[in-house]
Amino acid sequence: MNNELQISQRGLEMPASPIRKLAPLAYDAEDKGTKIYRLNIGQPDLPTPQKALDALKTVERSTLEYSPSQGYRSLRKKLVDYYERYQIKLNADEIIITTGGSEAVLFAFLSCLNPGDEIIVPEPAYANYMAFAISAGAVIRTITTTIDEGFCLPKVEKFEELINERTKAILICNPNNPTGYLYTQKEMNRIRDLVRKHNLYLFSDEVYREYIYTGSPYISAMHLEGIEQNVVLIDSVSKRYSECGIRIGALITHNEAVRKTVMKFCQARLSPPLLGQIVAEASIEGTEEYSRDVYEEYVERRKCLIDGVNRIEGCYTPLPMGAFYTVAKLPVADAEDFCAWCLRDFCWKDELTPKTMTVAGQEQPCKGETIMMAPAAGFYTTPGLGRDEVRLAYVLCKQDIRRALFLLEKALETYKLTHR
Amino acid sequence: MNNELQISQRGLEMPASPIRKLAPLAYDAEDKGTKIYRLNIGQPDLPTPQKALDALKTVERSTLEYSPSQGYRSLRKKLVDYYERYQIKLNADEIIITTGGSEAVLFAFLSCLNPGDEIIVPEPAYANYMAFAISAGAVIRTITTTIDEGFCLPKVEKFEELINERTKAILICNPNNPTGYLYTQKEMNRIRDLVRKHNLYLFSDEVYREYIYTGSPYISAMHLEGIEQNVVLIDSVSKRYSECGIRIGALITHNEAVRKTVMKFCQARLSPPLLGQIVAEASIEGTEEYSRDVYEEYVERRKCLIDGVNRIEGCYTPLPMGAFYTVAKLPVADAEDFCAWCLRDFCWKDELTPKTMTVAGQEQPCKGETIMMAPAAGFYTTPGLGRDEVRLAYVLCKQDIRRALFLLEKALETYKLTHR
Repeated sequence: MNNELQISQRGLEMPASPIRKLAPLAYDAEDKGTKIYRLNIGQPDLPTPQKALDALKTVERSTLEYSPSQGYRSLRKKLVDYYERYQIKLNADEIIITTGGSEAVLFAFLSCLNPGDEIIVPEPAYANYMAFAISAGAVIRTITTTIDEGFCLPKVEKFEELINERTKAILICNPNNPTGYLYTQKEMNRIRDLVRKHNLYLFSDEVYREYIYTGSPYISAMHLEGIEQNVVLIDSVSKRYSECGIRIGALITHNEAVRKTVMKFCQARLSPPLLGQIVAEASIEGTEEYSRDVYEEYVERRKCLIDGVNRIEGCYTPLPMGAFYTVAKLPVADAEDFCAWCLRDFCWKDELTPKTMTVAGQEQPCKGETIMMAPAAGFYTTPGLGRDEVRLAYVLCKQDIRRALFLLEKALETYKLTHR
Repeated sequence: MNNELQISQRGLEMPASPIRKLAPLAYDAEDKGTKIYRLNIGQPDLPTPQKALDALKTVERSTLEYSPSQGYRSLRKKLVDYYERYQIKLNADEIIITTGGSEAVLFAFLSCLNPGDEIIVPEPAYANYMAFAISAGAVIRTITTTIDEGFCLPKVEKFEELINERTKAILICNPNNPTGYLYTQKEMNRIRDLVRKHNLYLFSDEVYREYIYTGSPYISAMHLEGIEQNVVLIDSVSKRYSECGIRIGALITHNEAVRKTVMKFCQARLSPPLLGQIVAEASIEGTEEYSRDVYEEYVERRKCLIDGVNRIEGCYTPLPMGAFYTVAKLPVADAEDFCAWCLRDFCWKDELTPKTMTVAGQEQPCKGETIMMAPAAGFYTTPGLGRDEVRLAYVLCKQDIRRALFLLEKALETYKLTHR
């Protein structure tokens, strides 16, 4: 008999989000009148397509009822056309609409993996994969990629070393969050061969496919021949239409047994968000110009951020090929401490500091400025890695990125003086 | 090394939804021109409050961004006032907004229970509890309540028999889905004493609190003294404002350790639906007249359905005290077979049969009519129970309920002739 109420073991093991960990310090800083330039979170500041916003104003329903557990067919059909543009051939039955890409990851794990099963993931990796693995009782084993090698995929031998009878899947994010790395055809072929040889699932998170900045081709896991039944594609409209809040993603696979199982989890949670589906559907067609503009904007922001970081003494970041993140090395021993210090102890003021700032829609006096970054250690599972790295998202306008870079430089100078 | 791709064990164990199981037969029937009166699903036909629909048309945001993982504070504050009306005293920090009540159930299980831990649930029970338990690796143990006793709570001894060192929680739904039963003060006190004695969690799903039709008081788990740390309230705006599609629910507890753990799962899925929160917030205040009208409508529908069922020879249903469901006993050996037969083989036509019907927004010729019901066996875990029972939802207008009852009577007569 238990003597006290206990929290579950997986609840204890769940990591705090490395992106949101510093949030309380940020709130305190704002309360004290410090304006924060947020490079920490992948929340684009760009507007949602007007067409999508308009769709909301013309909703004709009198009852906001459950949608089908698989999502509206009309939305799935639009997605079929969308993927066609990327040479991914699907039919609407192969697409399952989920509550954000997050739910797609969770349902993939719950459907394909037993507790104790292992997933190989290149690190640094999107931190929430770990959280969903813990939720499903699965185990993430990481292959380390390094900033010095530009985060390219390690040799096949490194994978083979990790593969054992519990290994059930490889998970990649391509283009990558947090590194911005884009897998080459050669690398994708190596993954394909591994998947086929060991008959693994390949979970491929491709939510950043719109944002590829080099001439290199986008190789989807769905393009790989001979592993059609193994691939589970994770997707989301959040980033490409700047509509993270609507919570619409998708799980896509040619594997019927997987789809049938995923659908049981879908039926249990009844339906994905109705209103988000309406917005997502309006976002897909007739927004080519919007997408081009957004792309051009990220091209410029990327250049602005990467050039700027590499100009700061002691800082280095490789050139990310995709997504809107980069991992940067800073001249500090403990980036987490530095990031916390920036929020707690650093508040820069000069003639460019604005007089007022907006917090939660309210204008208030601004006493100084600082920056918020995501310490990169939280994206590695190997202890000690990424200690001197941060993830930076270029989701601010260029003017703000430039100011943030200036503040980073000043913060590093000040921190160095006080942390010898 | 595995030789083939496998589905997870929990995926294999996941039950098909008893409510949606017959969906393919329903689609076929509609394709053949049979109009279906749906008594099977808890999807109210009533309109969402106009005020909530209007809120959508006046969304001023240009970016549909992530909302806070805990949900907007403005919504949580409105909910504090709402619960105050029911003598439930909370502060906004004790409320966590979830993606429907479904996510609240899943996160409660993931946060409080380890794989193998047991939850005691009176059966028949909402079938998706089982699905969420399987997702979390927890085990549902059921206490049987019976139609002959009006689904009242069994004696404490029955609970004590099931309690062992793996028992971690009791889960109730009050007012109950599928039975419509409302727990009395005495029953709630018995649950409280059990929870306290064995130091269990009490998960209490109270999404139907608006719909109580007797003079009996609504006793929330939150009203019980001495187990404040044990109670986790599951809630949703879906049913009370007829907005199931927006996917907004809540997990509420005074227990800070539980909240902190639940928040880790919330952060992993980033945020609850933004647009749903806007609609939910607009639904809470200034909708008293709407709620009164909806309540009056259900009062009449309940009388119409219950009287009608009990008038049919061989049928019996107790009078449900709350929610908008009832479990009815039918004069058939296998209600699942009968429900499937109604969709597959029964198609009634007389002078009252309408000439046309609407399917997925399209008007088409109507050749006859039938009814769709949820076989109740899927709400029991004890094999063999509920075989001759169905769950009926009174979410149709009275005229349609009356016609559905007529069709049920005719279907039973015809079925009896062909199934001797």
